[in-house]
Amino acid sequence: MSLHGAYDDANIFAKILRGEAPCFKVYEDDVALAFMDIFPVSRGHTLVIPKRAAARNLLELPTDEVGPYMTRVQRVAQGVERALTPDGVSIFQFNGAPAGQTVFHLHFHIVPRWEGVAMGQHGKTPMADKETLAQLAKDIGAAV
Amino acid sequence: MSLHGAYDDANIFAKILRGEAPCFKVYEDDVALAFMDIFPVSRGHTLVIPKRAAARNLLELPTDEVGPYMTRVQRVAQGVERALTPDGVSIFQFNGAPAGQTVFHLHFHIVPRWEGVAMGQHGKTPMADKETLAQLAKDIGAAV
Repeated sequence: MSLHGAYDDANIFAKILRGEAPCFKVYEDDVALAFMDIFPVSRGHTLVIPKRAAARNLLELPTDEVGPYMTRVQRVAQGVERALTPDGVSIFQFNGAPAGQTVFHLHFHIVPRWEGVAMGQHGKTPMADKETLAQLAKDIGAAV
Repeated sequence: MSLHGAYDDANIFAKILRGEAPCFKVYEDDVALAFMDIFPVSRGHTLVIPKRAAARNLLELPTDEVGPYMTRVQRVAQGVERALTPDGVSIFQFNGAPAGQTVFHLHFHIVPRWEGVAMGQHGKTPMADKETLAQLAKDIGAAV
C-alpha cells in the first residue's frame, strides 16, 4: 500500500458517509462527521473525517478544505475534553500504511488520556461494547 | 502538569520564536515556524508551531487561527514528503503531559516513516547530530 493512489470508494468510512454502514455518531455538519472508533485505544477514542473530499490522507486534502475540516477536529476534541475530563488528549493522523493508516479516507484520531493509563496499540485492540460506544457518542455529542 | 494552565513564556519554543534560542529552521512565515526536532523519532522529524498565539495546545488555539496554522502544517508535511520520499508520514499532536506533551507551546509533529523501520519513542531518543539536522532542514525547506 503506497502513500498515494486512487481513492477507493469501498472503504468503510466512505460507506459510513453514504449511510451504507452504521456508526456511533458524535457530530455532523456539512464539512465533517465524527464518530466513535469501534477499536478504541482509550475510552472515548473518536474519529473525525471530512465529508466533501475524497482524500486518502492529509497530504491530499485540497488546501482550502484544511481550515474548515481542522476547526471541526478542534471542536470535537474540545467536546471530548468537556464530556470526559481526561488528563490529556493525544491527536494522531496517519498518512500511508507504513505510518499506521488502516482506512484510506482521511481521519484524525482524538484519544483522551488519563494519568497512569497506558494507551492501547492502534490496530491491535478489541472491538468495544456497543452500549458503551453508544453512551460515549451521546455524551461527547452533547458536549461538542 | 494539567491540561490547561497559564502559558509559560520561558518554554523553549517561545525562546526560539523570540530568537533567544537557536533552531534548525525549515520554514517560516507570519503564521507559523517549522524546524527540526533535535530529538527525532525518525529521520526528518519536523515540528510546526504557530507564531501568533500563546496557546499551550490545540484545545486552546483561537478557532480563527486553526485554519491558517493547519494549512502550514499540511504544507510542511508535503515538503517533508517531497524532500525525503518516505513510505508514510505520521502526524502527532499532544495536549497535556499525560498525552505525551513535553513543551507547552502548541506543536504538531511531522514524522516521516519508512517500511520496516520502527519509530523511536518520543522523549526517549538521543539528540541528533547537528550537521545532519542542518542538512535535513535545508533539504526540507527547499521542498516546502
